[in-house]
Amino acid sequence: MQRTEIEELGEFGLIRRLTEGTVLRQPSTLMGIGDDAAVLNPDGKQVVISTDMLCEGVHFDLSYAPLKHLGYKAITVNLSDICAMNALPTQVTVSIAVSNRFSVEALDELYAGIHKACAVYGVDLVGGDTSTSPSGLMLTVTALGIVDSAKVTSRAGAKSGDLLVVSGELGGAYMGLQILEREKVVFQSAPMAQPDLSGHEGILERQLKPEARTDVIREIDELGLKPTSMIDISDGLASEVFHLCAASGTGVKIYEDKLPISQHTYKTARDFNLDPTLCMLSGGEDYELLFTIAQEDYEKVRNHPKLSVIGHMTGDTEEKTLITKNGMETPLKAQGWDGVAKNNTQGEG
Amino acid sequence: MQRTEIEELGEFGLIRRLTEGTVLRQPSTLMGIGDDAAVLNPDGKQVVISTDMLCEGVHFDLSYAPLKHLGYKAITVNLSDICAMNALPTQVTVSIAVSNRFSVEALDELYAGIHKACAVYGVDLVGGDTSTSPSGLMLTVTALGIVDSAKVTSRAGAKSGDLLVVSGELGGAYMGLQILEREKVVFQSAPMAQPDLSGHEGILERQLKPEARTDVIREIDELGLKPTSMIDISDGLASEVFHLCAASGTGVKIYEDKLPISQHTYKTARDFNLDPTLCMLSGGEDYELLFTIAQEDYEKVRNHPKLSVIGHMTGDTEEKTLITKNGMETPLKAQGWDGVAKNNTQGEG
Repeated sequence: MQRTEIEELGEFGLIRRLTEGTVLRQPSTLMGIGDDAAVLNPDGKQVVISTDMLCEGVHFDLSYAPLKHLGYKAITVNLSDICAMNALPTQVTVSIAVSNRFSVEALDELYAGIHKACAVYGVDLVGGDTSTSPSGLMLTVTALGIVDSAKVTSRAGAKSGDLLVVSGELGGAYMGLQILEREKVVFQSAPMAQPDLSGHEGILERQLKPEARTDVIREIDELGLKPTSMIDISDGLASEVFHLCAASGTGVKIYEDKLPISQHTYKTARDFNLDPTLCMLSGGEDYELLFTIAQEDYEKVRNHPKLSVIGHMTGDTEEKTLITKNGMETPLKAQGWDGVAKNNTQGEG
Repeated sequence: MQRTEIEELGEFGLIRRLTEGTVLRQPSTLMGIGDDAAVLNPDGKQVVISTDMLCEGVHFDLSYAPLKHLGYKAITVNLSDICAMNALPTQVTVSIAVSNRFSVEALDELYAGIHKACAVYGVDLVGGDTSTSPSGLMLTVTALGIVDSAKVTSRAGAKSGDLLVVSGELGGAYMGLQILEREKVVFQSAPMAQPDLSGHEGILERQLKPEARTDVIREIDELGLKPTSMIDISDGLASEVFHLCAASGTGVKIYEDKLPISQHTYKTARDFNLDPTLCMLSGGEDYELLFTIAQEDYEKVRNHPKLSVIGHMTGDTEEKTLITKNGMETPLKAQGWDGVAKNNTQGEG
């Protein structure tokens, strides 16, 4: 009997291997595995569903992630997947498995965050399961959303010449994580020391309590904008750009000077001796939306306060190029360094 | 800070506590937490969704549950929840977290069972997540189904005088578990001994590879039968009867001599010195359907090969009575003995 270690395939390879035998049989299934969410069409309506599993010690560290924030984040990262289909979220289910290390009050905190996120986004918690776990905490969230048939946006659909657009700012969540890890090390060596988090509230919130860009979905609809492809940024900008290119059969050119970063994130990266561009490209967990639009829609996004045009798609599928600030062309890489790669365990997200 | 242990609340108490703050905000949410599945109505259609989490060491024991059967069962127990709404399943999502104890081949086996179940039931696997786990294997399955608005059947709706009907036979899954546990003990004391499973294939399959009664859902529809309430039997007949009574505001009378049991299950229970009736009432995991119908529908189910009328609902909510074979009235209890109670960890299921 052959034995292949999971790490030999890698996460995406494993998913591909496990799901390649999938046969779709329902007329109502328009799209199954392989995108941010599946698209269902029960008699004319399009229901979008997405699911994520979060495991303690893999996806979160309770030594610095408060349970309330964890609950909030577990919901919003799933809603972000719904947004990435150009849909608006409507319902979630939440399943948890917990060891007896957790008290009821601890779970109250977790659910306070879950209920808060549901309230903020106007989605309904409609089901779930609660179980004991031999060790640690695990959460599985499934989110549903709805979208008009004509507006469903998958990862496939970008054409050569389409503009690449990203919402918000990048790199903040990753720098928030660096702050938290630095303070954790300090705490471990000197437990009485107070953590030095002041002034970093914004990027800490980006890491601990990210938001789903339902506002952007609504605004691009109001702009009369139909993206040609879309994904949300969970693993990191470069990795998501690669997904769009692979699904759409295009190449890409990205301009370093167009990448949106907050002054605070930039300065914090410099303080940590990190390249701010690498933080934006590979940091991950920003949960911003990355999408492509036809060139003729440029005027709709120009000077939009929430949107940045960062490049364009090309016809050469081998081409993934970053144009640096000094005009050099360099191959775009999906991962920069080990400290960044460590975060890329979020699932298909 | 108060600290309450989870075990103080119990499983249902914990679920109630965690979900009582749930507010429903979507016009499309017809029913949320509290039944076998949530009911959604995106513009006239009813989508049914249900989710279950299965944890190694809690819900299954890989020393006797083959991974392929585990995958099959993870799907069918969720489809059973969809059936319990009088709906037919259409899609599932599957999320898994696995430790490095599992090889790719082991996960292939697991997914072979998942794909098999999808093929048998004609449902589509449309999403999921794959993650590493610090220890053991965890699965979360979410199932969707559809149903005509007029046919959705919840646990609430039974009236005094309604007949209580169960599909198939009871107690088999529990006796299958007893066989497996006996052979595990034998194996642990004498690892070279061959397990003595022959002749027990039927009840072993009931335990390891249960089916969802989509056939019964189709047949009661063909009979023109609309149940007044329905649930599937995951925890055990008595426990599920209590759920129907609580949700419907009724009491119940059950007749011991009407409870359906196979000759083999009966004989095996006797061989184990177990009361066959207790196995039927409290054994659990049969995944049969339990439902109520109006008295005037009696002729539709009389002599139906798959259906047994086992009692009726009463107006006294305090009354939960078992009429024994010798005509004695005895209080119906939800759990018989510790060995049975041990199985009642399956979630809301």
